Amino acid sequence: MENDLLAREKVFRDPVHNYIHVQHQVILDLINTPEFQRLRRIKQLGTTSFTFHGAEHSRFSHCLGVYEVTRRICDTFEHNYPTKHAGDGLWNDEERLVALCAALLHDIGHGPYSHTFEHIFKTDHEAWTRKIITDSSTQVNQILRQVSLDFPDKVASVIAKTYPNMQVVQMISSQIDADRMDYLLRDAYYTGTQYGMFDLTRIMRVIRPYAGGIAFNIDGMHAVEDYIVSRFQMYQQVYFHPVSRGMEVVLMQLLHRAKFLYERGDMDGFEMPSLLIPFFENQITVSDYIRLDDDVLNTYFNIWRDHPDTILRDLVHRFLDRRPFKSITFAPAQQVKIKQLQALIQNSGFDQNFYTAINNSFDLPYDLYRPSSKEPKTQIELQQPDGTLQELSTISPLVKALSGRESGDHRFYFPKEMLANPESSTFAPYLQEFQAQIINGALK
Amino acid sequence: MENDLLAREKVFRDPVHNYIHVQHQVILDLINTPEFQRLRRIKQLGTTSFTFHGAEHSRFSHCLGVYEVTRRICDTFEHNYPTKHAGDGLWNDEERLVALCAALLHDIGHGPYSHTFEHIFKTDHEAWTRKIITDSSTQVNQILRQVSLDFPDKVASVIAKTYPNMQVVQMISSQIDADRMDYLLRDAYYTGTQYGMFDLTRIMRVIRPYAGGIAFNIDGMHAVEDYIVSRFQMYQQVYFHPVSRGMEVVLMQLLHRAKFLYERGDMDGFEMPSLLIPFFENQITVSDYIRLDDDVLNTYFNIWRDHPDTILRDLVHRFLDRRPFKSITFAPAQQVKIKQLQALIQNSGFDQNFYTAINNSFDLPYDLYRPSSKEPKTQIELQQPDGTLQELSTISPLVKALSGRESGDHRFYFPKEMLANPESSTFAPYLQEFQAQIINGALK
Amino acid sequence: MENDLLAREKVFRDPVHNYIHVQHQVILDLINTPEFQRLRRIKQLGTTSFTFHGAEHSRFSHCLGVYEVTRRICDTFEHNYPTKHAGDGLWNDEERLVALCAALLHDIGHGPYSHTFEHIFKTDHEAWTRKIITDSSTQVNQILRQVSLDFPDKVASVIAKTYPNMQVVQMISSQIDADRMDYLLRDAYYTGTQYGMFDLTRIMRVIRPYAGGIAFNIDGMHAVEDYIVSRFQMYQQVYFHPVSRGMEVVLMQLLHRAKFLYERGDMDGFEMPSLLIPFFENQITVSDYIRLDDDVLNTYFNIWRDHPDTILRDLVHRFLDRRPFKSITFAPAQQVKIKQLQALIQNSGFDQNFYTAINNSFDLPYDLYRPSSKEPKTQIELQQPDGTLQELSTISPLVKALSGRESGDHRFYFPKEMLANPESSTFAPYLQEFQAQIINGALK
Amino acid sequence: MENDLLAREKVFRDPVHNYIHVQHQVILDLINTPEFQRLRRIKQLGTTSFTFHGAEHSRFSHCLGVYEVTRRICDTFEHNYPTKHAGDGLWNDEERLVALCAALLHDIGHGPYSHTFEHIFKTDHEAWTRKIITDSSTQVNQILRQVSLDFPDKVASVIAKTYPNMQVVQMISSQIDADRMDYLLRDAYYTGTQYGMFDLTRIMRVIRPYAGGIAFNIDGMHAVEDYIVSRFQMYQQVYFHPVSRGMEVVLMQLLHRAKFLYERGDMDGFEMPSLLIPFFENQITVSDYIRLDDDVLNTYFNIWRDHPDTILRDLVHRFLDRRPFKSITFAPAQQVKIKQLQALIQNSGFDQNFYTAINNSFDLPYDLYRPSSKEPKTQIELQQPDGTLQELSTISPLVKALSGRESGDHRFYFPKEMLANPESSTFAPYLQEFQAQIINGALK
Repeated sequence: MENDLLAREKVFRDPVHNYIHVQHQVILDLINTPEFQRLRRIKQLGTTSFTFHGAEHSRFSHCLGVYEVTRRICDTFEHNYPTKHAGDGLWNDEERLVALCAALLHDIGHGPYSHTFEHIFKTDHEAWTRKIITDSSTQVNQILRQVSLDFPDKVASVIAKTYPNMQVVQMISSQIDADRMDYLLRDAYYTGTQYGMFDLTRIMRVIRPYAGGIAFNIDGMHAVEDYIVSRFQMYQQVYFHPVSRGMEVVLMQLLHRAKFLYERGDMDGFEMPSLLIPFFENQITVSDYIRLDDDVLNTYFNIWRDHPDTILRDLVHRFLDRRPFKSITFAPAQQVKIKQLQALIQNSGFDQNFYTAINNSFDLPYDLYRPSSKEPKTQIELQQPDGTLQELSTISPLVKALSGRESGDHRFYFPKEMLANPESSTFAPYLQEFQAQIINGALK
Repeated sequence: MENDLLAREKVFRDPVHNYIHVQHQVILDLINTPEFQRLRRIKQLGTTSFTFHGAEHSRFSHCLGVYEVTRRICDTFEHNYPTKHAGDGLWNDEERLVALCAALLHDIGHGPYSHTFEHIFKTDHEAWTRKIITDSSTQVNQILRQVSLDFPDKVASVIAKTYPNMQVVQMISSQIDADRMDYLLRDAYYTGTQYGMFDLTRIMRVIRPYAGGIAFNIDGMHAVEDYIVSRFQMYQQVYFHPVSRGMEVVLMQLLHRAKFLYERGDMDGFEMPSLLIPFFENQITVSDYIRLDDDVLNTYFNIWRDHPDTILRDLVHRFLDRRPFKSITFAPAQQVKIKQLQALIQNSGFDQNFYTAINNSFDLPYDLYRPSSKEPKTQIELQQPDGTLQELSTISPLVKALSGRESGDHRFYFPKEMLANPESSTFAPYLQEFQAQIINGALK
Repeated sequence: MENDLLAREKVFRDPVHNYIHVQHQVILDLINTPEFQRLRRIKQLGTTSFTFHGAEHSRFSHCLGVYEVTRRICDTFEHNYPTKHAGDGLWNDEERLVALCAALLHDIGHGPYSHTFEHIFKTDHEAWTRKIITDSSTQVNQILRQVSLDFPDKVASVIAKTYPNMQVVQMISSQIDADRMDYLLRDAYYTGTQYGMFDLTRIMRVIRPYAGGIAFNIDGMHAVEDYIVSRFQMYQQVYFHPVSRGMEVVLMQLLHRAKFLYERGDMDGFEMPSLLIPFFENQITVSDYIRLDDDVLNTYFNIWRDHPDTILRDLVHRFLDRRPFKSITFAPAQQVKIKQLQALIQNSGFDQNFYTAINNSFDLPYDLYRPSSKEPKTQIELQQPDGTLQELSTISPLVKALSGRESGDHRFYFPKEMLANPESSTFAPYLQEFQAQIINGALK
Repeated sequence: MENDLLAREKVFRDPVHNYIHVQHQVILDLINTPEFQRLRRIKQLGTTSFTFHGAEHSRFSHCLGVYEVTRRICDTFEHNYPTKHAGDGLWNDEERLVALCAALLHDIGHGPYSHTFEHIFKTDHEAWTRKIITDSSTQVNQILRQVSLDFPDKVASVIAKTYPNMQVVQMISSQIDADRMDYLLRDAYYTGTQYGMFDLTRIMRVIRPYAGGIAFNIDGMHAVEDYIVSRFQMYQQVYFHPVSRGMEVVLMQLLHRAKFLYERGDMDGFEMPSLLIPFFENQITVSDYIRLDDDVLNTYFNIWRDHPDTILRDLVHRFLDRRPFKSITFAPAQQVKIKQLQALIQNSGFDQNFYTAINNSFDLPYDLYRPSSKEPKTQIELQQPDGTLQELSTISPLVKALSGRESGDHRFYFPKEMLANPESSTFAPYLQEFQAQIINGALK
């Protein structure tokens, strides 16, 4: 089978890239696996659609998009920079299929409500991605093995960044890769915001391979700069939106409570959530893992509307009926004050273990390559007409301003009831004291 | 409470209308009910997202959109055509709140995968919409009653088209209403097609009230014509897409099989689908009804991947992993030939009761908004400078061409396996005979 | 030189097609000729920008766009339908360069304010296009001759539709050609209307060569139908807009008056319009012709603001300062009534020869091939899976409704002053009588 | 007359703002003046359309756009922040008309190819704007005087920033005003780039009046930040494009040469450019000034194609037929080297006074209010929930990076011939020496 091309290219209409072009039988077969189709039932942005209601798109769409951007990069490279001899730093189109497969499958291991779920159940979507690709029980693996026996490992190594060809690795994972390029455009489109828009066609004109990986012709500097700025703005405006995080925190406490009840044996008297049990028991097979999706969680929550535990029922209501926790920003040095607020919340009738949370969201918009760092970044290189390279932040003042500098905030979350008019509450003194600690949305 | 306005307008960012503006406390409270939040878990286009993967948006988004279009019509009417005295045929802004509530709630009774589900379980989403609005057990009803005791009935009567003010009725239900205007634009945006695009801002400039309901200034004729053409094209290109219907047919047979097994007692040995039992038993309370959503169905399907019944398991696989039935068009007079094909399918190892289906586009579940022939349509009137009215099709050749003429097709659905290469099949003669009946996608 | 490719593709950023890709040295050289650069100074839509102020784009942009659409069609044909042997009806990519040159140059002979200017000065832009391509004095000709000595004639014959390869001819001139596809999208973009939008990428997927020219795969029928409808709507809504025609009529009378004065010798006492004299004298060389553009006309008009002739000065003011004539529709049978109106206008102090006009605008949106017609149309053919062809209007009810049926109206134009309040006029009785003939914008 | 509203609002279709809404008779009358209609014949971006061919839009469109943005700001202010009593820092809607007129007319004094023309003829478009508004000979002035006798002076004082109400002044002129908001969006639309896009509707939601002028609610910080970044990027990517400046420099030298010839008496033997003479003589009346536009210049250039002066003819060819000068960047300290290059150019047969030029383009993307500065900027203030203000750059790292820091480059321009292959030139040694000084587009 190997590199078999379809007799006739197949296309998927896509609102972001217009068409997704599928040209290999392998790619079509991978899309048709149950593991990949499962991604239709996992939202790309988790609880963000509670804030931006339009953003109901799935990881399925995103993965097709990452594939398509990668395909276009390969086309550009093949057309303009084909290798003439080994070691010339240009593009070898025999790498195309491994790049495309890695692009398509890079998120295949995501579970429902990704980070929140992982936090409670200690799963790791990257490990699961590798496992789904390399475990011989999956259809994904069986299709990849038809290319060659070591092909699944190759694809997995691209995602793990250990694949020898750095051009392929950087297409999929770097500070300006097909993954990020798709999600910024897609999330901007579906949220209806414009922050994530940047000029993909211009970037496709200036991207190029070089011996060390991927670079950009210097006359495209502003398009690359604009992409970095867009990414920064999407994080600040969309991904870190305080209300979405207020729903994420409710979800986390809801899963936390369910696990707590299961471990205490208090799920026994009620309908058992069969598909979740392996996760409660922390004995998860590949087959268990790929049964899980957003719909399964939502349905168990729905069933738990009748559960005897008051707190579980209340948290389920807050999640399914969209009652986000409220929040204030605080400084790391204010931990003592946070404890005081937690005590006031406890006194107002809410179990602080399940009704408060800290959520710190920070992102590093761009960084230089720092060999000493735990996860060194591949810095963005611009190529001048004479072939020399210049690192992006040395010529862009905007990127320099963002470089090596984490952006985000620390937030403390609590039930909306704490902001009610104290006069109408039986916990008036606690509410008053609580509210007096807040100014302009921040802890005083 | 009544007409209480919010101290500060609240907005929802929307990719189609930019912002949804909420100005009344009642509207905000209705959006926050569990009944309305449930619509987040019901896809607007059902199985269409299996063909147009971008179209994963929910009825929640659509309902906000219908509300917003209605709000803009009210603004236009209030600004340009305020009534001076009773009977002048102009707009009385005291009708605004009932119009807005009806717009927001007009789809509140939709169940999961609407028409397919209704077909199997004999439910009626319009009846459920009325019930959710008027039954005192729902939060929707409780909020509406705070406006006035008869307000829920008023809102329900707008949706039932029995409300006395025809301007309000036609805003929500007519051949050019807020509902259709939103779904065409929204579905075009999310599918990534352009057929549904038309010039909403121009229509907002020419729409006007008159004694008989709603008309349009004649200089906006082409914008109205364009809307009619767009709607026609969306039906032909998107809503009646043969592949989406191929998934709908799989879903229908899957529910059909599940009901069959339940009725035969063959669900007993397996995990019971508690939330579905009232539907199997045909004893459905409001509370049962609003527990159901797409996620619940998908999750039971997911659980049934382990069910002992081979056919159920297979249909579940076809649905969750996207294996649509294939189809051919046929003429109504070819019923005998269809029977012959069904026999060939049965001989090839597929139970024809669960593996074949007729799907005529006229009966499609997405065709919710097409008034049945029993109900007379409200024709679209254009108003000339001297006040006289002209019916649209009398001056638009395009509309005349579409007027009074049903469009669509008859399709016969069957498993893709029937189109396999006969040489590789044990049922070669049947497949050969089957395939010999087809030319250019149609029954010979 | 011949088919020389540029070392590196050159691109022009374009708001409609994103990028225009230039790959041949010949194309780049043609763009850089004075004859082609002149098109920057000729508006694509003439007086339409007086109605849709955004539509100030030039023929230069449009010609680049037609080139680009043609280039994309060639790419599609070369990629999907390359000829294997002569007479197989597929695409011979050696035809590419002649197609591209014809596309780029098809409008090179347009003069300023095209139809109006031609009407007064009896020029013919198609003849001038041929002349500029084939006359050895032009730079365009010199560049084309470098490909081969007969290349200019080949290019001209494509535009004249006498070139033997009908695929090339139909790319540039047919009922669905690169010219129309570009101008619909471009004019829609610049006017800010949406009527001209259609799905170009979908059409690019279904367009294909066949022995008789160009056809479309039948599964793209709706995209082709949508294009026909869009074209119809642009004519009715934009190109035939009564106010733009009201400016066109002013322009025509202004040129008419100038020619009248020149012929009467009444230009002599004033600054002579040197670049226009060859046109007044009807002795026009290629060199004279390519000196003319919109700017030249506007500048002479500007100078004529000081001309001694009252009527010329007044018409110049009406044109430069945007004072369109007003209009009413009428039926062909109402000629006698029109004469009466003209008399009333004359009586009101306006020379009817220069202050009234008839403007009839009609378009044939689509037609079948009719061998007996003066200019038979190439009908649009859809290709079925088995290779047979079906003419478009036989399966599209919308196209059938438009087919063979001219759309437009007859309008009578006159000075706005005729609609003034009669009470404030010294010509009250004439105005009253005039105005009494009009109802709903039409002659009674 | 005063504040007379039109019986029915009039709209202009606009591709950027969808509709321009005109509600006052005064505004409609101002649009219809010859002075305002003249702006149709002056391109908004001068020579930029030689680089971005789509950008052929006029100052007419831009001025309507500035008017419309101002109108929307007034609507927002009137609706959300109406003044209750003098001195409360809120919006007094009696200021609306002066704001609208100033917005519409702020560019009325622009001449053709603005800065280049001003540079050669020492005109000042701001002074001419004031003059056209306040000089009793203009129609603009006559219309404004109908509002009240001091109204023209009021309008002029808004533009001069001396009007007492700082809210009105800042709407029209500040670091985030209606002028900039329109031109960024409009220029982005017409060039087909996306750098100038920002979220106008979001800014319209957060803009608000306060005692000191205009501020923004702090939750809209990122929309304001995005606007500043967009503006920076448009300057770097579009307005400072080296090729457009290469055409600007040709134009400057062309006008320079014409003036030189006129002053030397060498225009006498040829057709005199009557409309330009007042500028050559530096005796310009209002009436002279408003006769001039791009078309007039282009037409005189066109006539000069036959002029006896070789240099003038050559420069005219370079301009009309788009032959931009080429350029390299240099550092201010490299003046001596520039002199050496100029000598080489002179030696290669080009008069260095007319064939070389320095063009330095710098912009200050944002700055704080600096009382000591020559033209202190109004800094952008964000308002917190408790009413306190925070200056933008203190919370936006992106804006801080741009604040108080000029961006741009120094460029030296020369004829393209200097970069030709020396071997094919008679000036080989000079060309070789010249070319040896350049690396990566910069002076070594």
